Amino acid sequence: MGIQRLAHVDVTVTDLDLAVAYYTEVIGLLETERDNNSVYLKCWDEPNHHSLRLIYGPRVGFDRMSFKVQREDDLAEFERKVSQYGFPVIRVSKGDRVGQGESIQFETPSGQLMELVHDIEMVGRATLPVNPTPFVHGLKGIAPPRLDHLLVTAEEVGDSAKFYQDVFGFRITEQLLDGQGHQAAVWLEVSHSPHDLAIVAGHNGGLHHFAWWLDDWDHVRRSADILAYNGIQIDVGPTRHGITRGNTIYFFDPLGTRNEVFTGGYRPDPDFPMITWTEDQIGRAVFYYEGELNQRFMSVHT
Amino acid sequence: MGIQRLAHVDVTVTDLDLAVAYYTEVIGLLETERDNNSVYLKCWDEPNHHSLRLIYGPRVGFDRMSFKVQREDDLAEFERKVSQYGFPVIRVSKGDRVGQGESIQFETPSGQLMELVHDIEMVGRATLPVNPTPFVHGLKGIAPPRLDHLLVTAEEVGDSAKFYQDVFGFRITEQLLDGQGHQAAVWLEVSHSPHDLAIVAGHNGGLHHFAWWLDDWDHVRRSADILAYNGIQIDVGPTRHGITRGNTIYFFDPLGTRNEVFTGGYRPDPDFPMITWTEDQIGRAVFYYEGELNQRFMSVHT
Amino acid sequence: MGIQRLAHVDVTVTDLDLAVAYYTEVIGLLETERDNNSVYLKCWDEPNHHSLRLIYGPRVGFDRMSFKVQREDDLAEFERKVSQYGFPVIRVSKGDRVGQGESIQFETPSGQLMELVHDIEMVGRATLPVNPTPFVHGLKGIAPPRLDHLLVTAEEVGDSAKFYQDVFGFRITEQLLDGQGHQAAVWLEVSHSPHDLAIVAGHNGGLHHFAWWLDDWDHVRRSADILAYNGIQIDVGPTRHGITRGNTIYFFDPLGTRNEVFTGGYRPDPDFPMITWTEDQIGRAVFYYEGELNQRFMSVHT
Amino acid sequence: MGIQRLAHVDVTVTDLDLAVAYYTEVIGLLETERDNNSVYLKCWDEPNHHSLRLIYGPRVGFDRMSFKVQREDDLAEFERKVSQYGFPVIRVSKGDRVGQGESIQFETPSGQLMELVHDIEMVGRATLPVNPTPFVHGLKGIAPPRLDHLLVTAEEVGDSAKFYQDVFGFRITEQLLDGQGHQAAVWLEVSHSPHDLAIVAGHNGGLHHFAWWLDDWDHVRRSADILAYNGIQIDVGPTRHGITRGNTIYFFDPLGTRNEVFTGGYRPDPDFPMITWTEDQIGRAVFYYEGELNQRFMSVHT
Repeated sequence: MGIQRLAHVDVTVTDLDLAVAYYTEVIGLLETERDNNSVYLKCWDEPNHHSLRLIYGPRVGFDRMSFKVQREDDLAEFERKVSQYGFPVIRVSKGDRVGQGESIQFETPSGQLMELVHDIEMVGRATLPVNPTPFVHGLKGIAPPRLDHLLVTAEEVGDSAKFYQDVFGFRITEQLLDGQGHQAAVWLEVSHSPHDLAIVAGHNGGLHHFAWWLDDWDHVRRSADILAYNGIQIDVGPTRHGITRGNTIYFFDPLGTRNEVFTGGYRPDPDFPMITWTEDQIGRAVFYYEGELNQRFMSVHT
Repeated sequence: MGIQRLAHVDVTVTDLDLAVAYYTEVIGLLETERDNNSVYLKCWDEPNHHSLRLIYGPRVGFDRMSFKVQREDDLAEFERKVSQYGFPVIRVSKGDRVGQGESIQFETPSGQLMELVHDIEMVGRATLPVNPTPFVHGLKGIAPPRLDHLLVTAEEVGDSAKFYQDVFGFRITEQLLDGQGHQAAVWLEVSHSPHDLAIVAGHNGGLHHFAWWLDDWDHVRRSADILAYNGIQIDVGPTRHGITRGNTIYFFDPLGTRNEVFTGGYRPDPDFPMITWTEDQIGRAVFYYEGELNQRFMSVHT
Repeated sequence: MGIQRLAHVDVTVTDLDLAVAYYTEVIGLLETERDNNSVYLKCWDEPNHHSLRLIYGPRVGFDRMSFKVQREDDLAEFERKVSQYGFPVIRVSKGDRVGQGESIQFETPSGQLMELVHDIEMVGRATLPVNPTPFVHGLKGIAPPRLDHLLVTAEEVGDSAKFYQDVFGFRITEQLLDGQGHQAAVWLEVSHSPHDLAIVAGHNGGLHHFAWWLDDWDHVRRSADILAYNGIQIDVGPTRHGITRGNTIYFFDPLGTRNEVFTGGYRPDPDFPMITWTEDQIGRAVFYYEGELNQRFMSVHT
Repeated sequence: MGIQRLAHVDVTVTDLDLAVAYYTEVIGLLETERDNNSVYLKCWDEPNHHSLRLIYGPRVGFDRMSFKVQREDDLAEFERKVSQYGFPVIRVSKGDRVGQGESIQFETPSGQLMELVHDIEMVGRATLPVNPTPFVHGLKGIAPPRLDHLLVTAEEVGDSAKFYQDVFGFRITEQLLDGQGHQAAVWLEVSHSPHDLAIVAGHNGGLHHFAWWLDDWDHVRRSADILAYNGIQIDVGPTRHGITRGNTIYFFDPLGTRNEVFTGGYRPDPDFPMITWTEDQIGRAVFYYEGELNQRFMSVHT
């Protein structure tokens, strides 16, 4: 039993048409459904209904993160655990949320809305289940194969990390300590990946970025080409993280939400020895090539 | 509870010095220990004691595959399940096997020796746990970051696959069907990877190859350069698999065991829709670029 | 004065529609013109009228290779030199050949038709001359940026090489010697490239292959993906040459002419020290990874 | 007759030991000779005596750029032409300069010392001339195969460009125009390369940077890894130029001279249609991904 992976990220946008144009034409996601106020998108290699929901709203922001659990029964178990931890849990019936069945939702200690769901509609990958080609012809834009992780902000990083560890079994792969030895940021995983979720010091409820996986350093270059071609503001990169050692580009969608494309890193086992970064190495930790953070990266999030 | 990943592969070699020279100088593994008849090796990015054991023996062959289980209690549970399935299980005490604690071992339906272990000695990755560099300077040879998977042969592929699914919870990501619709080969995973273990039709007890992970298509080229530089016989590649869609090179160690370097592929969730290949597409399925198998690839294994 | 580079290769095809479909959809060349029996094609990054002419004919074969000379006056000078060397030269008037002005043509010692031309129509690259993007959006197929070189066959390689050196100033970058110390193959350049023209032992008048440049090893992989996707027969590769040290794939167009995509290599100065390969190393020389030639590569050409 | 390529760049350094340590250990150049105040270095794939001379001096600066001419007679011809253009020429005898024979030297309109030489000592490439491997084992640092180009500063870019065009036959591949339509920067080539020499507006006599060639985008990443590992200050990159469309990293040697590693770009023929950039696109022109220049890049040079 447990959490399997990040299922989808839901964000609010002030211009749904502009957002959809960007996420389909520049990022190259596929639209799977739309309802009166939302558009549902997935990556070409994902079999599930959506990994990104764009919701029309009066301000740009983070709506929720949704994780997939291994078994339907996990919902009840996690409902109990989260409630015991002191956070009210709402159960959402099948039919209330597009593309998925029953789910539970609750606010995390750092104020983000978190959803757990087991039953997600399967719409299939863009390749056939019989004798598939290893790639899909004619995709637009960057066309990442899948959603990878997200980074949220928290006033109390350590308390937040403990919540994800104790209740859901997330494991810390890396941590950044401030001068007092407190966690200033943590990277957490459940899926043999360097991080499914990361938490960095900041205001409660915030989203720093969400990220898609790329297969290769060359796909990083093509992503930069496509971003520049489309006039998208690159925040940092192509560069490399010391943390996770992945290669990366950060950039902003036209409404101001930070996106990332990411590749590389290791595949940690549950007994992977945690890595610790000290504050004096924060530059190399975050941007290994530059050796320093830019102010925008530190201060801007939604 | 369950199996986490492939922990190590043990093979017999008729010339231990030659084998060690190859696996350390050409592949670039690190020697962690040796006893009277064996040498233990690991990849630079693996924290555990070893992922390859070379055992001196009168013939080149496959000794066993060892998988890591999540909890110590899993050993008793799997002992019970395997016994019920009809296969005698031997419990091996801590101290009897180098670099690991208590384990169980048994023969699989297709005659390979399989070992399960939870307690494996941690020797650490080659990078430091505090403020690590994203790579290690001065490694020799190909220097893959980790062991990835192995492919064994079985007279009855379907029965074998069922054993791994029913007893251990392996999931089939891809299957190749023969003209009668029977499984001629299956790819099984437990670690969000296209395959931790694969089974192909052949004699019982055989090892077709074991494989290391590479990070990138460029690392595939460097591997080919290094193999050719060292006069290693390349079997096939650089090329691409239709199955797993990974990029690959197959080659032989100096004693005749087939090795592979592998990168790419997808990250399947437990509900990943199984992919089926039909016999008429076997060429593209195995070697996407060539579109055909070579005779050596089909017939030679240890 | 002198030869600047390979301008275009002209081949005959028995099915013009099929050939054009392949060269535009799979290779991704751009059609610039067609007349009653020919189609003219160029790479996206080439400014000239065409680099490939497909001519309808009763058999698949090599029509000619055309080189660009630096100045109009070079035509008269080379006309004199070639005639003195003993080969009749025909002067072709402006208007007689599509996309180019006055030219001279003659048979080389090994029986290939060679053309020299200075005045070639400029149709422009696919990017704009003002504030261009670094790549072109929406190209089909492999889309190589430019034609790179060709390899012809000759009964007397040494005599042929001498002709290109003495008359046109080609320089030998590499040579392969047979067991008697005679040249079995030579690689010749005029444009700071490992080879603009190569000659290998074979029947007079033959074309072994012509090749396009790729920018990167990753472009080699994408080429292999695209070839396999389109069911094109790959002859060898992706692999690496010992000679030129470039990365490569050989494959056949649907009518049987061998094509190559090529990247890498060095940039030789005119005083580049010639490299010599001995016959016993011919496997590594031609296919560094495989270490051996396949029979088809040795015997099939048009 | 004419200029073939950039032969070597000579710079002054205030700490010769530190400079040599950096250029051999981090960049991976090979030391070929040293005399009482200088160290001579070459890239592994260059056959000539040196492509970089480090000269001890009281300040960090640019000593000269040296170009190789095709024939010994070219020296006299260029001596005449440069003198006629109004610049005094000094002839330097064989023996006066290490690693090369007779040369001429003179100041260019923008105040840089320029040298022309034909006779350069051949010391050979790092690979053998008979049956070479396609790479060299055990090189240190970045190990670029060759020097590629340099960028100098000039008060009057247009006048400078005209000098190189009229006297030496350099061709402009790209130009950047300021708001008044004057050349603010030009890129010039003689060797079928996007640029052997570039000129940008700045003080007379300055050196903005010199650059080495890399084979691949992956080599760009490895360069960034190595630079960061060694604590070298990266100025910009990994990124892409709009101009030349090459991929690049700029960084500083420990004494403050800017270096670049560069790959990609096109191979222009002499009739290559010149590309023009307008001032409003200067950001994309220079750094395609960022879309803007940093102040340091604009103002710092030696």
